[in-house]
Amino acid sequence: MKNNELFLKKASALLPEPKKKEVFPLPYERIEMAAKDTLLIDFGNHYVGYVTLNLGFTGSHPDAPAWLRVQFAEHAAELEEDVEQYHGWISKGWIQTEQIHVDELPCRLSLPRRYAFRYVKITALDVSMKYRLMVNQVSCQAVSSADESRLEAFCGGDFVGKEQDILLDKIACRTLHNCMQTVFEDGPKRDRRLWIGDLRLEALANYQTYRQNDMVKACLYLFAGSTYDNGQVSACIFLSPRIEADDTKMFDYSLLFIAALRDYWKETGDWQTLCELYPTAVRQWEIAGEQFDSENLVRDGDALGWCFVDWNLKLNKQASAQAIYIYCAKALEEMTQEICNNYVQHAGNVQEAEEKRKNVGESRCEGTEEEKDEPCAHALPLAEKVRNRLPGDMSDKIKACAKLYDEKKHVYVSGSEKQISWASQIWMVLAGVDNGCALDAVGDLPGVEAMVTPYIYHHYIEALAQSGRKDRALQVLRTYWGGMADQGADTFWELYNPENPNESPYGGTVVNSYCHAWSCAPAYFLRKWNKQV
Amino acid sequence: MKNNELFLKKASALLPEPKKKEVFPLPYERIEMAAKDTLLIDFGNHYVGYVTLNLGFTGSHPDAPAWLRVQFAEHAAELEEDVEQYHGWISKGWIQTEQIHVDELPCRLSLPRRYAFRYVKITALDVSMKYRLMVNQVSCQAVSSADESRLEAFCGGDFVGKEQDILLDKIACRTLHNCMQTVFEDGPKRDRRLWIGDLRLEALANYQTYRQNDMVKACLYLFAGSTYDNGQVSACIFLSPRIEADDTKMFDYSLLFIAALRDYWKETGDWQTLCELYPTAVRQWEIAGEQFDSENLVRDGDALGWCFVDWNLKLNKQASAQAIYIYCAKALEEMTQEICNNYVQHAGNVQEAEEKRKNVGESRCEGTEEEKDEPCAHALPLAEKVRNRLPGDMSDKIKACAKLYDEKKHVYVSGSEKQISWASQIWMVLAGVDNGCALDAVGDLPGVEAMVTPYIYHHYIEALAQSGRKDRALQVLRTYWGGMADQGADTFWELYNPENPNESPYGGTVVNSYCHAWSCAPAYFLRKWNKQV
Repeated sequence: MKNNELFLKKASALLPEPKKKEVFPLPYERIEMAAKDTLLIDFGNHYVGYVTLNLGFTGSHPDAPAWLRVQFAEHAAELEEDVEQYHGWISKGWIQTEQIHVDELPCRLSLPRRYAFRYVKITALDVSMKYRLMVNQVSCQAVSSADESRLEAFCGGDFVGKEQDILLDKIACRTLHNCMQTVFEDGPKRDRRLWIGDLRLEALANYQTYRQNDMVKACLYLFAGSTYDNGQVSACIFLSPRIEADDTKMFDYSLLFIAALRDYWKETGDWQTLCELYPTAVRQWEIAGEQFDSENLVRDGDALGWCFVDWNLKLNKQASAQAIYIYCAKALEEMTQEICNNYVQHAGNVQEAEEKRKNVGESRCEGTEEEKDEPCAHALPLAEKVRNRLPGDMSDKIKACAKLYDEKKHVYVSGSEKQISWASQIWMVLAGVDNGCALDAVGDLPGVEAMVTPYIYHHYIEALAQSGRKDRALQVLRTYWGGMADQGADTFWELYNPENPNESPYGGTVVNSYCHAWSCAPAYFLRKWNKQV
Repeated sequence: MKNNELFLKKASALLPEPKKKEVFPLPYERIEMAAKDTLLIDFGNHYVGYVTLNLGFTGSHPDAPAWLRVQFAEHAAELEEDVEQYHGWISKGWIQTEQIHVDELPCRLSLPRRYAFRYVKITALDVSMKYRLMVNQVSCQAVSSADESRLEAFCGGDFVGKEQDILLDKIACRTLHNCMQTVFEDGPKRDRRLWIGDLRLEALANYQTYRQNDMVKACLYLFAGSTYDNGQVSACIFLSPRIEADDTKMFDYSLLFIAALRDYWKETGDWQTLCELYPTAVRQWEIAGEQFDSENLVRDGDALGWCFVDWNLKLNKQASAQAIYIYCAKALEEMTQEICNNYVQHAGNVQEAEEKRKNVGESRCEGTEEEKDEPCAHALPLAEKVRNRLPGDMSDKIKACAKLYDEKKHVYVSGSEKQISWASQIWMVLAGVDNGCALDAVGDLPGVEAMVTPYIYHHYIEALAQSGRKDRALQVLRTYWGGMADQGADTFWELYNPENPNESPYGGTVVNSYCHAWSCAPAYFLRKWNKQV
C-alpha cells in the first residue's frame, strides 16, 4: 500500500464530526426482572448511537452481580435468531449482542460501543433471588453527520399514490442519514466503513438530499490517498487506528472511482479536485485494462479476481465487468475532455483563488513545492495523452461485446457457461452498448439469474430510465422498495429479494445489514425526477 | 435498618485504600488465534485485580470486531466447567466469564471489573477470516490492603516436616492477603464482602500476620454502625453505593460479633472501642436470648432462623447454636468484667489521651456533646446491669445442654431427630460445656454429619487445642489444609471435603470460591503455637 499524505490530509480536514442527539424509546412497561426475564424496548425508528441504561432494583440490596444480555436489532427478526446457530462465513463478531455484568445497582450503564438498531432486548441471564432488576430508563446518543436542516421537503408531485413515494423517500433519507457518519458508511451495523461502490450511490442520493458535498470530496481523497502500490484504489478504506486501504481488490469498485469522481465534479464543478484526482481515475482505467484478453474481452472467473456487481453468489461477472469498464471509460472520457478543453480557463481561476487564500492568511495543504505552485498542472498533459488512447480502447471493448450477445435470445450472456442474468443486461445498457432491448428480452426468459440487492436494483432503475423506460423504472422502484416499506422497514436493507425473504450471501440473515445506504435510491431518483418534471 | 453515623464515620476514616502492584503472567506462547482458538494464561499465583490485555493481529487489517470470551479461574477446574450447565441457587452472575467485542485492533483492553484468579483463558469466539488475533501482553494491577512489609517470616520451628507447615502458612497468608481489600472480604471472587463470621477468623489470622488492626476495628464499627432496627447486627455489610447492612439475619453470626470484639480488645487493649461497641455486643446477647424456650434450649429448625455453623446442608444447628450462645456469653462476660473492674483506671487514660489530641489540633469524630465529653460513659452502667444478669443466664443455658447429651454415646445430639454431627461436639467444647471427650467419642460413631468447610475445621482445631489435644489439632490441620496444598492450592478454599471433591452447597462447584479467608487457619494456629513453644 502507498499513501499520499497530501490527499489524506485534505481528506482528514474535511471529514465531519458526527453530531449527537439524545433520543428515547417508546414507553415500555418497567417490569421487575427475575432470572431469564426479558424486556423489549422499541425506539420507534432506526438509530445509530451509544446507549445508556439506567438500572435499578427492587427487593433486597443486590448480593450478586446482575448478568445481562443486551441485544440490538435493526429488524425485529434479528431478535428471534440464535447467534449459536449462525455458522456463516463472515464473523459472528458483527452480531450486536453483549453480555454484561453489573456489579453495583443502581447504576447508569453507558455501553461503550456504537450500535445500529431500533429494538433493544434485555435479558436477565441471572440476578440473585434477593432482588429484581429494573430497567428504569433507556436513552441513546444518536449520531449522524447528516444535517437535517439542509434537507428540502419532498412532496412527491401531484398524483394519486404519492404518499407511497413520500414514504419511500423518507425511509431512503433515514437510511442515508444513519449511514452518514465520519464517512459514508455502507451500513452502520456492518461493515461500518467506506466502500467505493456504496459511496458512489450514497453520493448520488446526497446530491439530491443533504448536499454535504465536502463529505463526498473527503471520501474521494481517502480512496486516492491510500492505494495499492500500483495505484489501484482499494475497495474500502479503514479510518482507524490510522487511515489505511483494505487489501480487498475489486475490479468493478476500483473502476467506479472514476464514475464517482465524474459525478462529484458534475455536481459541484470542483475543478481543483477533478484535476488532483484525475490521475487516480486514469490509473484505475489503466489497471482494469490489463484484465482483458487479446480479443478485448475481460477475463472470466478467477482470473478476473473479485468483481462484485451483486450479492447473487451464482452470478457470472464477465459481461457486467466488460460493461462496467466501458461505462467508466466513458466517465473518464468526459473528465478528459473537460480538462483538455477548459484547462486554461479554469487554471486562471485557480490562481486567482490561491491569491485570495494567501491574502486572508490561510495556508494550503502541504505538498511538494511543485504541487503548491500548480496544483492541477499535471492533469493537462496526462489528459492529453489519455485523449489519444481512450477512444480506440473504448471502441475495441465495445465491439467485443458482440461476442457476448446471444442473437437468438437478444440478451448478453456471461462466462464460459453463457449465463444469462439481469445484471449483465443492466450494465450493458448503462454502458450504452445496448439500447434497452436486452432489458425487455431478459424478462421473458426462464432461469435468468436474479437481482438480490438494492445495489443492483439501483442500476436497474437507472438503466430503465436511461433507455427511455422511465415509467417502468418508477414501477420497479415502487414495487421493490415498496416491498421493504410494506414489511415495516425504517431504513432500507442491504439485501432484499422479494422471492426469498431469507436471502443472505453470508450464510445467515442474522448478520445482514438492515440500514444500508446503497439502497437509498428512492431519494435519489424520486427527487431528481421530480425536479425534471 | 438503622445507622449510627458516628460509628460509620469512624469506620470510613479507618478503611484502607487497597494498594496496586502490576504483575505479569508466566511466559506463554503467543499463538495466532483464529475463530474458536483458545489461549490459557497462567499468572503463577492467585491474584485479585484488574486485567489489561494488549491485543494485536496478524494478516489483513481486521474487517470485523474480534469477539472474545475471557474467563478467569482461581482453580484450573473452573475452566472445564460449563456455565450453561450450572443451575444452582446462587447467581450465575458470580461466574467470572465475559464476552467482549473488540472493534479496533491493535488495542489495549483494560477490563473494568475486578477478578480473583490465577488463570485467564481467552477464547476467540470469532474473528474474521482476514486476520488472526494476537494476545501480545497480559498484565494485572493486583490489589490488596495487606502490607507485606509487616509480615514476619515464619520458619516453622525446628522439626522434621516443617517445610509443609511453612507451605501451609504461606498459602494461608496469601489467602488473607487477597481477601484484605477495603474490608476483610470473605472471598474476592464471591461474595466480595464483609461477613462477620468470616471477619472473626480473618481478624485472628491478621493478629498473627499483618497486624493491621485498624482494619479490624473499622469492620467492627461497620457492623455496629448499620444494624436492624432492634440493634441486631446483620450477617454482612455492603459498602457500595453506600454503607448498608444486608437483610440477612444469622443467629450465630450476630452473636459472633461479641467474640470478634472480645478478640480485638484482647489483642489491642483498645479500651475506647471496647466501651463504644460494648452496647452493640450486649444487644446481640439479648436478642439471641429471645430464641430460647422455657427449658433454656435454643429453638430448633425454622423457628431459629438461619444459623450457619457450616455448609453441610443436612446439618441440624440446635446444639451448635446452644453452644455458640454460651461461647459468646462467656466472651461478653470477659468484657463486662473488664469494664466493671477497670473503668475508672481506663477512663482516666482516655481523658488524658483526649487532652493530647486537643493539643495537637486533631479533632475527634463528631458526636453528641455527651459522647464527646465521655465517650465510654455509657458502658459502665450497662456493664453493671449485665454483670447482674449474665451469670445466671449462662448457667441456665449450660445446664440445659444436658438435655442434648446422649449418655450412651457420650456425644451431643441436635434437633428432634437427635442428629449427631462433628459441629455439635466442636462447639460444645469451645463453649466449655464439654471437656473434649465428645470429640473423641464422635470419631468412633457411624453416620456422623461431616464437616465440609475450613470454617468449621478452624473451630475443630481450636476445640482440639483448647481441650488439650494439640498434637491431634496439628495433625488435623496438616492433613486437612495439606490436602488442599497437595492439590496445588495457591490459596485456601471456601469448601473442602476430602470425602467429596465436588462439595458445593450452591448446586455447582463453578461458583465455589477458591480463596476464602475463613480458611487461613494455618497462619493463625501455626504462628500462635510457634510463639508459645
